[in-house]
Amino acid sequence: MDLLLLLFSAIWYILPAYIANAVPCILGGGRPVDFGKNFFDGYRLIGNGVTYRGTFFGILFGIITGILQHFIVILYMDPESAFNYGLSGYIILSFLLATGALFGDMLGSFIKRRFKLNQGQSAPLLDQITFIVFALLFAYPFYPLPINTIILLLVISPLIHLSSNIVAYKLHLKKVWW
Amino acid sequence: MDLLLLLFSAIWYILPAYIANAVPCILGGGRPVDFGKNFFDGYRLIGNGVTYRGTFFGILFGIITGILQHFIVILYMDPESAFNYGLSGYIILSFLLATGALFGDMLGSFIKRRFKLNQGQSAPLLDQITFIVFALLFAYPFYPLPINTIILLLVISPLIHLSSNIVAYKLHLKKVWW
Repeated sequence: MDLLLLLFSAIWYILPAYIANAVPCILGGGRPVDFGKNFFDGYRLIGNGVTYRGTFFGILFGIITGILQHFIVILYMDPESAFNYGLSGYIILSFLLATGALFGDMLGSFIKRRFKLNQGQSAPLLDQITFIVFALLFAYPFYPLPINTIILLLVISPLIHLSSNIVAYKLHLKKVWW
Repeated sequence: MDLLLLLFSAIWYILPAYIANAVPCILGGGRPVDFGKNFFDGYRLIGNGVTYRGTFFGILFGIITGILQHFIVILYMDPESAFNYGLSGYIILSFLLATGALFGDMLGSFIKRRFKLNQGQSAPLLDQITFIVFALLFAYPFYPLPINTIILLLVISPLIHLSSNIVAYKLHLKKVWW
């Protein structure tokens, strides 16, 4: 398959996971999902970064993305396209991707707390890839992808994450480039 | 394939990479490969953790492992076995795995320095998986593996790393469990 087409189809598939991962940064806050409780090692179970509000809006905007994708497909794409999952298909797929992405973020935070890393301290690779891995684990059994698309997603995700952060840093939206 | 056999063949294949990754902890030290130089961000290029001596002994013991594997294969295994790469095969494979593993460790250290993580500060996932990924990238083109073996290696490596560290912690060989 043409690399550009492969790249497009990979990003198209995973898009609700990216949205679900990004939205809590803007619409998060409120009560943390661990209710401020500690694990038996005396450190926070998950931390203040993962909240009920962030999770709710992450899933909501993930599903909205899926619904928009459906309309774009029926309006602008070949109905024979492999992307034509139908409305209910896009709702289920985007729900699975968004839930998986947020579960991955939560697990990533849990792991970081066990390694005594504070919220905001970066864990390169873990921060950029757990949400993709779990989005794929949740969605793949119902909406499988070719193996080369999966490998491409795992390789490009840290790069996309990094380049978007560098752009935000250059625009003075972020204090650090990572 | 039987899961136990799959597990055995995965670990058998990657063993020189594990050895190359572990040896510098014991036989490392000396001049760091970056000569103490800083990157243009003002932080160390790689750090004191990656040295010429550690790299030399890592590759040496990786290749010794490969040679031992060859003798075990010809003495105790079916000569028709898929593991029978021959002596030169094992030397080349173990060299590629060891070099890849150490390159991965070096790249991991480079990334950690860019994220302002000091030597010894843990980066969960990155610390346990970059050496496996690069060992596979170096060796796979010449000695390919089935995809399920690769996935198994990527999943078990962080677990092996973690459990061996917990054992070392329980034996009071390490101060922290990770």
